[in-house]
Amino acid sequence: MRIAIIGLGLIGGSIGLGLKRCNVEGLTCQVIGISRREETIQAAIDRGAIDEGTTDLKLGVKDADLVFICTPISLIIPTLKTIVPALKQGAIVTDVASTKGLIVAQAEKLTPKGCFFVGGHPMAGKEKVKLEAAEADLFKGATWVLTPTDNTDKNALETVAEYVALLGGKVMKMEPKLHDLVVAGISHMPLAVAAALVNTIAEAKEGQAEMKKTAASGFRDTTRVASGDPILGVDMFTTNKAAVLKMIVAFKASLSNLEKVIKDGNAERIKAELEKAKSLRDSIYG
Amino acid sequence: MRIAIIGLGLIGGSIGLGLKRCNVEGLTCQVIGISRREETIQAAIDRGAIDEGTTDLKLGVKDADLVFICTPISLIIPTLKTIVPALKQGAIVTDVASTKGLIVAQAEKLTPKGCFFVGGHPMAGKEKVKLEAAEADLFKGATWVLTPTDNTDKNALETVAEYVALLGGKVMKMEPKLHDLVVAGISHMPLAVAAALVNTIAEAKEGQAEMKKTAASGFRDTTRVASGDPILGVDMFTTNKAAVLKMIVAFKASLSNLEKVIKDGNAERIKAELEKAKSLRDSIYG
Repeated sequence: MRIAIIGLGLIGGSIGLGLKRCNVEGLTCQVIGISRREETIQAAIDRGAIDEGTTDLKLGVKDADLVFICTPISLIIPTLKTIVPALKQGAIVTDVASTKGLIVAQAEKLTPKGCFFVGGHPMAGKEKVKLEAAEADLFKGATWVLTPTDNTDKNALETVAEYVALLGGKVMKMEPKLHDLVVAGISHMPLAVAAALVNTIAEAKEGQAEMKKTAASGFRDTTRVASGDPILGVDMFTTNKAAVLKMIVAFKASLSNLEKVIKDGNAERIKAELEKAKSLRDSIYG
Repeated sequence: MRIAIIGLGLIGGSIGLGLKRCNVEGLTCQVIGISRREETIQAAIDRGAIDEGTTDLKLGVKDADLVFICTPISLIIPTLKTIVPALKQGAIVTDVASTKGLIVAQAEKLTPKGCFFVGGHPMAGKEKVKLEAAEADLFKGATWVLTPTDNTDKNALETVAEYVALLGGKVMKMEPKLHDLVVAGISHMPLAVAAALVNTIAEAKEGQAEMKKTAASGFRDTTRVASGDPILGVDMFTTNKAAVLKMIVAFKASLSNLEKVIKDGNAERIKAELEKAKSLRDSIYG
């Protein structure tokens, strides 16, 4: 199996490291890394994340059976457009973008007959997004959503699912639209909320210095995602706009609800709201 | 020095453990623990958090030079009312409540001539709030706010500050009203936001099961504080109502701001908002 990875950051690098470890354990795949920078390719070879590399997209995917597009969201479709003429018959292309609706629709139109596209989203991440942060275990136990549609080839889907499982990921299948609402709810809208929380302090006219000095572990955790790469946030909010706005509206209703019972000084109702939240959260994280 | 600790949960227990460790290192203080339950007193003695204990408030504080009231917020004033007749001349009373305006005002009225009250708030915590979670190092490096007013005795303030420093806390002095706005901004309002975030999922009509299944580390951290004891939240929201509501209004304005630029699809403005948040947060947590 010849596998091409386009984009050698945290995700692409971790896929490479994971596949190469599988090789040690008996798999035989050749991993080709494609990056815009020679230094990144060399670093990926040095780390043992790829067998060989190139800065030439078409050359890199030429004989590949499976292609992972691990670029930032906004480059996925442009990348696909570039590689399509170079794909061999039977090649399967998957991506790792955290929004799927727009990308899957466009990708399906672009993919030539005899080649296959399967949308994917590994739900694993770190604040650091470069190759240095990559690790073979990044996907271990993490959900990796695949977003088949009516047009998706069943065999291609199963092949991608097999490799996800080899990397330690737990495959979950979901249609693109539902996926986008789900990630808006658990990831994109919470990022907006975390950023707004920090910006509330940034804009505070009174007590700002004291707030910055006394902010402890609670504020740190509640706002952790706001320290992520702003570019990734822009990608989420622009490519998943409808679902994000829908979830922000729902969040605001939920907060207004709590605000009202606080205003009323209704201890019982406040307790009920907090218990509802605690109970749902504890059911997720135990 | 005879020190009484009323309430042997996470905070009271940790104060006891910290003081007793100071004894090992050369301090000589007698630590009396006061709890409503005999078992808690025995457990605190077994853990080495107190030297002796009683369930009788007045008996416990009778000869104490320094009294820490470590009960839930709503019991601080009732507790103070009970112990006031039993305090010896020169006794200093401090508390650990996370809201200070109401409590300090009431406590100053209740404290008899010849005794002294100093409001305090150690900004250290965990999700678990019982004695089992107590540790001598809980306050190490943590901010411990003291909230003197024009009525506060300077010597009493310095004595409390000395013991806070012995426990490893960093003393920060702030008037009660400013303290309450500050904790509303970095703790109470963020709790409301975290609870509202979880309740958005709890109320989701579409994708709820998938959201619960795929919620990963980002959502976990953003909502961590929502798994705290609801009773503590009720105390925060009822005793610090005005400041909490003020900060919720400020937060909603900040979120609406971000919502607008997302709606406009304005990538530059979205980026600017996320960069502002990242930059402020990174300046706090490095």
